Amino acid sequence: MQQYPQATIITIGDELLIGQVIDTNSAWMAQELNKAGIAVKKRVAVGDTWEDIWQALDNAFKESQIVLLTGGLGPTADDITKPLLCKYFQGQMIVNEEALENVKAIFTRLNRPLIERNLKQAEVPSTCTVIANKRGTAPGMWFSTTKNNREVVCISMPGVPHEMKGMMTDDVIPGLQNRFQFPHIAHRTLLTAGVGESFLAEMIADFENALPSYIKLAYLPNYGMVRLRLSATGSNAEEVTATINNHFNQLQTLVAPHLVTNKDATLTEVVAEILLQNSKTIGTAESCTGGYIASQFTAKAGSSAYFKGSVVAYSNEVKNTILDVPQTMLDTHGAVSEEVVKLMAQNALIRLNTDFSIAVSGIMGPGGGSEQKPVGTVWMAAASDREVITQKMLFRFDRQRNIELTSTYSLNLLRQLLLKENKS
Amino acid sequence: MQQYPQATIITIGDELLIGQVIDTNSAWMAQELNKAGIAVKKRVAVGDTWEDIWQALDNAFKESQIVLLTGGLGPTADDITKPLLCKYFQGQMIVNEEALENVKAIFTRLNRPLIERNLKQAEVPSTCTVIANKRGTAPGMWFSTTKNNREVVCISMPGVPHEMKGMMTDDVIPGLQNRFQFPHIAHRTLLTAGVGESFLAEMIADFENALPSYIKLAYLPNYGMVRLRLSATGSNAEEVTATINNHFNQLQTLVAPHLVTNKDATLTEVVAEILLQNSKTIGTAESCTGGYIASQFTAKAGSSAYFKGSVVAYSNEVKNTILDVPQTMLDTHGAVSEEVVKLMAQNALIRLNTDFSIAVSGIMGPGGGSEQKPVGTVWMAAASDREVITQKMLFRFDRQRNIELTSTYSLNLLRQLLLKENKS
Repeated sequence: MQQYPQATIITIGDELLIGQVIDTNSAWMAQELNKAGIAVKKRVAVGDTWEDIWQALDNAFKESQIVLLTGGLGPTADDITKPLLCKYFQGQMIVNEEALENVKAIFTRLNRPLIERNLKQAEVPSTCTVIANKRGTAPGMWFSTTKNNREVVCISMPGVPHEMKGMMTDDVIPGLQNRFQFPHIAHRTLLTAGVGESFLAEMIADFENALPSYIKLAYLPNYGMVRLRLSATGSNAEEVTATINNHFNQLQTLVAPHLVTNKDATLTEVVAEILLQNSKTIGTAESCTGGYIASQFTAKAGSSAYFKGSVVAYSNEVKNTILDVPQTMLDTHGAVSEEVVKLMAQNALIRLNTDFSIAVSGIMGPGGGSEQKPVGTVWMAAASDREVITQKMLFRFDRQRNIELTSTYSLNLLRQLLLKENKS
Repeated sequence: MQQYPQATIITIGDELLIGQVIDTNSAWMAQELNKAGIAVKKRVAVGDTWEDIWQALDNAFKESQIVLLTGGLGPTADDITKPLLCKYFQGQMIVNEEALENVKAIFTRLNRPLIERNLKQAEVPSTCTVIANKRGTAPGMWFSTTKNNREVVCISMPGVPHEMKGMMTDDVIPGLQNRFQFPHIAHRTLLTAGVGESFLAEMIADFENALPSYIKLAYLPNYGMVRLRLSATGSNAEEVTATINNHFNQLQTLVAPHLVTNKDATLTEVVAEILLQNSKTIGTAESCTGGYIASQFTAKAGSSAYFKGSVVAYSNEVKNTILDVPQTMLDTHGAVSEEVVKLMAQNALIRLNTDFSIAVSGIMGPGGGSEQKPVGTVWMAAASDREVITQKMLFRFDRQRNIELTSTYSLNLLRQLLLKENKS
């Protein structure tokens, strides 16, 4: 098999090693690189330490021809990446005029005083080509040289996500595609619900064993759902696409009873698409999820076409005053009950004037549980003007996970109602 | 300086290299290790490939005495971690009786059929000590041996976050503290708002230059706020605490005009604490954030003591019907206007019966902008029964970031109102 250039991603910053921030940059970068046919060999996070960064670079060039760095380029004193790169690639620090103009323009626009420290951002190693930063002051740097007898590229970008993303899209990926030849990589993903990873594996064991070596299957379990992903690699784009589609169709048929979607989409996106296609609207009445389900809907651009709003009834008082749940019902059955979520869902339809609604009420923990209703107890309902369906779950995780699971299960309940009404 | 054992974290899974999931495990692990005085040297993510995992282990043992692995232990066929560890640590696969009982018990409890594949999970290398998994089927494995002439430990855990977290807390960290001696590491963090990273750096330049070598300062900018973190390391816990507190007090004084809190807390937590201390309640009226602010409040256990609910008025209709914003006002000024957010905030107080409220309305993008109100335009208001304060912002980022920034800035606006009312 032909060896294509691969990439190693190095993220720099002590904050990554003490866990104070979660690294979302390298996941995004990996995604974009894969789309462009550039396989990622490894991701490494190191601290702001000269020796560690240097060694990470040495190691990276042993296994990859492309090394992408983010972080360590800010204006403050804990940054050592730039002088290190200058020495590593045997250059001298020089002022880059375009980067200087950019820094000045940004400070003028923001009407902030420009200090020595900011001007320093326009200095770069003489051995790099500058990648303009259209969104911030720190310029990107592209080094091309030879290591271990092969052509290598090292690209350093700021750690600020939108600045890095802009550079990747505008300059880095097109530049790499210009310089190297990459294989075609295709991924196809489907989403299943209501069945465990090992059970799925049994269902598709023969299929999996018969897969050719250039197709990989991965199981990605998450919050009560399992995604299955096929990845195919090859030199001919058309062949790769045809092969993966063929195998993907087989896979879909095998898991059909549990299939939610044959796209790499979230459950929220699946539900949104059904609503959009049928010109239907939705609203939520949320107690224990506290607006999380609504925020999942509205995270997506264009959601105003189907999502109208939500009543977050975290207190019983709000359940009563805005969602018209009688105090006697709350007293008799408790806020976490089938009766209450049913009425919350029905009254949300009226209050928000929507075609469909979701309502949830539960105990997310860690406190608030009782013997009858332990932590993790959730009642959920999905309603249309024709019917209400309900479901009770008992989740046994931490607060955050319980909230996310409640969101997933209630969306799946809604999906079932949507499909049912679509058929009838 | 004494050399203490350090840790390298290796996460395993092709999904990490194609960016289909974000690795939150290793950030959490790093946090917990640091708290226990165990410095993290490096974090590495590799694919499900024999050579890459093997090489990552070899590299890790060169720099660290402690290597923590997560992922690659599920019941499905893409897992190669266990056989690899068996070979790497020169053992044979044997059935662990306790792990077997655990697998059987879980399947009995879930009332699911137990298949061959699940039984395999109870097999472990003969050279490891099993760490019981109280939350799932895959056992943890602890290997102790000698590499490069020093004692090393390798611990393999499942990638499912709550299973890994349980093992880390119950067994791994206590076990490591038992076996090795670690230094005392102390971190103190403060949060500033309304001032840039480089400007802060100038303010505290003398302080920073005078820091002793065992104290580190880091700048952590995030969404219009900058956190400053001091980290001190030493062998004597009391000395470390005294030293860091002394420097931290100096730092606080220097940045006092921009200080939000001297704790490592989020803005939501700061606001929550003020509300709780004064026995005040809050609700939100959200258009463009679609429930995100409410979900930030309710993510925190115990939030029902101050958070009562929210009206997510994503459509103008809901602004009108539930928040009583007159249609004429919406027509005249538009939904994104000072008049509308002011009234949304005031009526949220009444509707939700709270002491304080936040209201936001804006254009998060990518569509929906106009010349007068470009994408990123947001009006926000914070209200009490005594007054309403408003703020207009223009954010220039992507949808997700605009939502998060709107949340941050509106919480900061509320914080200002809370402090003002507390004083008067």
